[in-house]
Amino acid sequence: MKITREKWQTDFSEWFDWVLKEGEFYDYGRYPVKGVGVWLPYGFKIRRAVTDLIRNLLDSTGHEEVLFPMLIPEDLLRRESEHIRGFESEVYWVTKGGKDDLDVKLALRPTSETSITFMESLWISSYKQLPKKYYQIVSVFRYETKATRPMIRLRELTTFKEAHTLHETYEDAERQVKEAVEIYKKFFDELGIPYVISKRPDWDKFAGAVYTIAFDTIMPDSRVMQIGTVHHLGQHFTKVFDFKIQKKDGSLDYPHQTSYGISDRVIAALIALNGDDHGPVLNPKIAPIKVVIIPIPAKDDETNKKITDYCDGIAEELNKNSINAVIDKNPEKTPGEKFYIWELKGVPLRIEIGQREVNNNMVYIKRRDTLQGISIGRSELVQKVSELLMKISEDLKKNAWEMMKSKIIYTDDLDEAKKTLENRSGIVEVPWCGENDCGLKLQELTNSRVLGSPYDSARDVSNKSCVVCKKPAKDTLRLAKTY
Amino acid sequence: MKITREKWQTDFSEWFDWVLKEGEFYDYGRYPVKGVGVWLPYGFKIRRAVTDLIRNLLDSTGHEEVLFPMLIPEDLLRRESEHIRGFESEVYWVTKGGKDDLDVKLALRPTSETSITFMESLWISSYKQLPKKYYQIVSVFRYETKATRPMIRLRELTTFKEAHTLHETYEDAERQVKEAVEIYKKFFDELGIPYVISKRPDWDKFAGAVYTIAFDTIMPDSRVMQIGTVHHLGQHFTKVFDFKIQKKDGSLDYPHQTSYGISDRVIAALIALNGDDHGPVLNPKIAPIKVVIIPIPAKDDETNKKITDYCDGIAEELNKNSINAVIDKNPEKTPGEKFYIWELKGVPLRIEIGQREVNNNMVYIKRRDTLQGISIGRSELVQKVSELLMKISEDLKKNAWEMMKSKIIYTDDLDEAKKTLENRSGIVEVPWCGENDCGLKLQELTNSRVLGSPYDSARDVSNKSCVVCKKPAKDTLRLAKTY
Repeated sequence: MKITREKWQTDFSEWFDWVLKEGEFYDYGRYPVKGVGVWLPYGFKIRRAVTDLIRNLLDSTGHEEVLFPMLIPEDLLRRESEHIRGFESEVYWVTKGGKDDLDVKLALRPTSETSITFMESLWISSYKQLPKKYYQIVSVFRYETKATRPMIRLRELTTFKEAHTLHETYEDAERQVKEAVEIYKKFFDELGIPYVISKRPDWDKFAGAVYTIAFDTIMPDSRVMQIGTVHHLGQHFTKVFDFKIQKKDGSLDYPHQTSYGISDRVIAALIALNGDDHGPVLNPKIAPIKVVIIPIPAKDDETNKKITDYCDGIAEELNKNSINAVIDKNPEKTPGEKFYIWELKGVPLRIEIGQREVNNNMVYIKRRDTLQGISIGRSELVQKVSELLMKISEDLKKNAWEMMKSKIIYTDDLDEAKKTLENRSGIVEVPWCGENDCGLKLQELTNSRVLGSPYDSARDVSNKSCVVCKKPAKDTLRLAKTY
Repeated sequence: MKITREKWQTDFSEWFDWVLKEGEFYDYGRYPVKGVGVWLPYGFKIRRAVTDLIRNLLDSTGHEEVLFPMLIPEDLLRRESEHIRGFESEVYWVTKGGKDDLDVKLALRPTSETSITFMESLWISSYKQLPKKYYQIVSVFRYETKATRPMIRLRELTTFKEAHTLHETYEDAERQVKEAVEIYKKFFDELGIPYVISKRPDWDKFAGAVYTIAFDTIMPDSRVMQIGTVHHLGQHFTKVFDFKIQKKDGSLDYPHQTSYGISDRVIAALIALNGDDHGPVLNPKIAPIKVVIIPIPAKDDETNKKITDYCDGIAEELNKNSINAVIDKNPEKTPGEKFYIWELKGVPLRIEIGQREVNNNMVYIKRRDTLQGISIGRSELVQKVSELLMKISEDLKKNAWEMMKSKIIYTDDLDEAKKTLENRSGIVEVPWCGENDCGLKLQELTNSRVLGSPYDSARDVSNKSCVVCKKPAKDTLRLAKTY
């Protein structure tokens, strides 16, 4: 069977909506509030695998999980926005409790820098208590005026992992930024999600940050999606709250902070980045079901009984070996209908058992990613399935990286850059003088967005000129059409 | 050392606030919104152990975890309150997004019957899809007008586990109520929290329920606290949403529902129910740290080095055996100061290591619950610590049950009932004719609250009379001063 990827790439939005709904990952667009969705059991299991992974990575690097209130009083939030351009225009406000008007409006948290810094100022008074690394996994709210999309642009982000750290010095915080980048690399590597890491331009950094490092990936429609950010916050928020600590040398000063976050978008990328017109292919590492077993009915009941017994044995053996397997015994559906739904759910391996397999003591296994099947002996089951799951995980990661890399081009020709971006084919990287003005002009000229300069893989531009002003290049800038 | 329990019992509120704050479980009263708190890392670990436990119990009984939106539009919530006395008076309303007034007010969910039933009506159309058992662990909001208390009466309940199930028939739903009661029994038994189970009187059941079964426990100040509820919802909510399914016999009818919930109060009980004037005693099953090791300094550096090396070896061996142990090496604190803080944190076992222990290859272990110490040989370490942890867990459970039982009295003398309740000494159970009027009168006469009739342990009242109307008793009623 030939794999087609037309819908997946050219009608990606439609493909994604179809997968989430029909594959029963996430119900979107039917709940009567705009921009919010319902995590269905199957999707929730993927979400749990993702949150377990990030928890493990953070716990093992000295981060402590906490839980702060959802509501932030107006004056706390305003203290920040007096100093920094803030989130105010996209904040939801609670103004009533029961029939009473509240004395102080309460914001649904858009992010928690203000509430966390306020509490830290009560808890921490000395360098001896530092560093502190907190994180929480919570819902945050943004009153988005742009078009919303399931998991990708939401008014309630339900899977916001925000880390907040506190340090004695600027350099300590900078080291923390590097640690955070390494943690996110491990996280995305483990999930097989490819990324480029950019230092966001000054005009696009987080409100209140000294600088912002961002992870971006390229979606099947070649648009770029931000999937993680790391901010060096310097002393911005600690100054806002007049929060000083005693330093090692005895002096009092504002401590330095970082914050870093990921969201539901990680799960969107996981579902979207490997797919075809049959649906997604889930990475075995996070797939809630690793193997689906489908009995192929024979003509007589006796043989059918043998077939289902044989299937039961396979399921039992796989589950005993911690390979989550289910049998689809639904008598009202044909095997073809079952293939359709389980492919749409992205289950990595399908086992088909008919009379032939039973008679010959064989197992027929089909890979979801390649749609290729092989027959193996019954006794090889666990070993072969384990190998295939591992192989699929590796191949998915390799393919996703190759796909992304094929969509990143480097050019010092402005026209080529424009044309490539017009055709929406990923990321274009161009030589740049390092001036904000040229960066902003580039955005205008190419009608796209500057992602920033490469964070950890600078290109040699010693003989190149800025594509805008023609002065000697100092770095490169990445440009893309983004979500 | 003698254990005193004065503060713990007579000034329980103060004791609890002190423990939560100074023991660094939960920061309450300082965040600038009334009735909300911050889960600190140490408390959060207990919360995680509790949520892990309930997840395991629910997953293994066919419940599926989901996540519904936090915001419920006014018209969805009102559909319910038109039919049933609802939560309206205690709902927070979001009325603004950014600078815009919202067209439709949005409620912060007080509970999720309405949103879940609405979505179920889109998903489910046939008995073949039933039963369905969903649950989620989320924040819910109540605009409480009563005095708030940390973990016990909150405006944001951050640990609301709500299960919602759907069934073809009334009887199926009734069986689910029984399953839910069994799950909660296991849950509280595992945590060592004692309970009585009552069928709430008609006037105090959940808004929309056919009947409500509740778990109550008795706190150290002898007040009763509700720690879990199970509701048979019948067809109330499915009728509100005109949600019918095809039944086995081909007819169309409204399906039946149950819902059941627990909250942060479980964690309050866990921390409060075993304690003394030094602080709480955590059950080893959920204690984030099982053993704290405290070096007792000697006079010379060389000996001190030997002591800390010896402590390191002990910590390493315990941790290798999955017994979470930490060493408090803080050079700025005396052993006495360390004892104080770790007792306040409720760590089940303390190991003290001084020159004597090192020289004799011994380990001195002190139980947090009895404050009794024993010396053991170094080689017995893991076995003895494991035994002690198991013993503490059993003893805590036993003591908590005994304490609760000692505060439940049965009497057919109304004056005795009144007096006992005036002195706030727990639960009083009295014979009752079964009429609501007598129940309501009892509340007035005793200035207390009716918890309901025993759910699974009816008393023989064949020769007794109702304490109010003197007619023959049919059952008993439990009365108490409650939170």
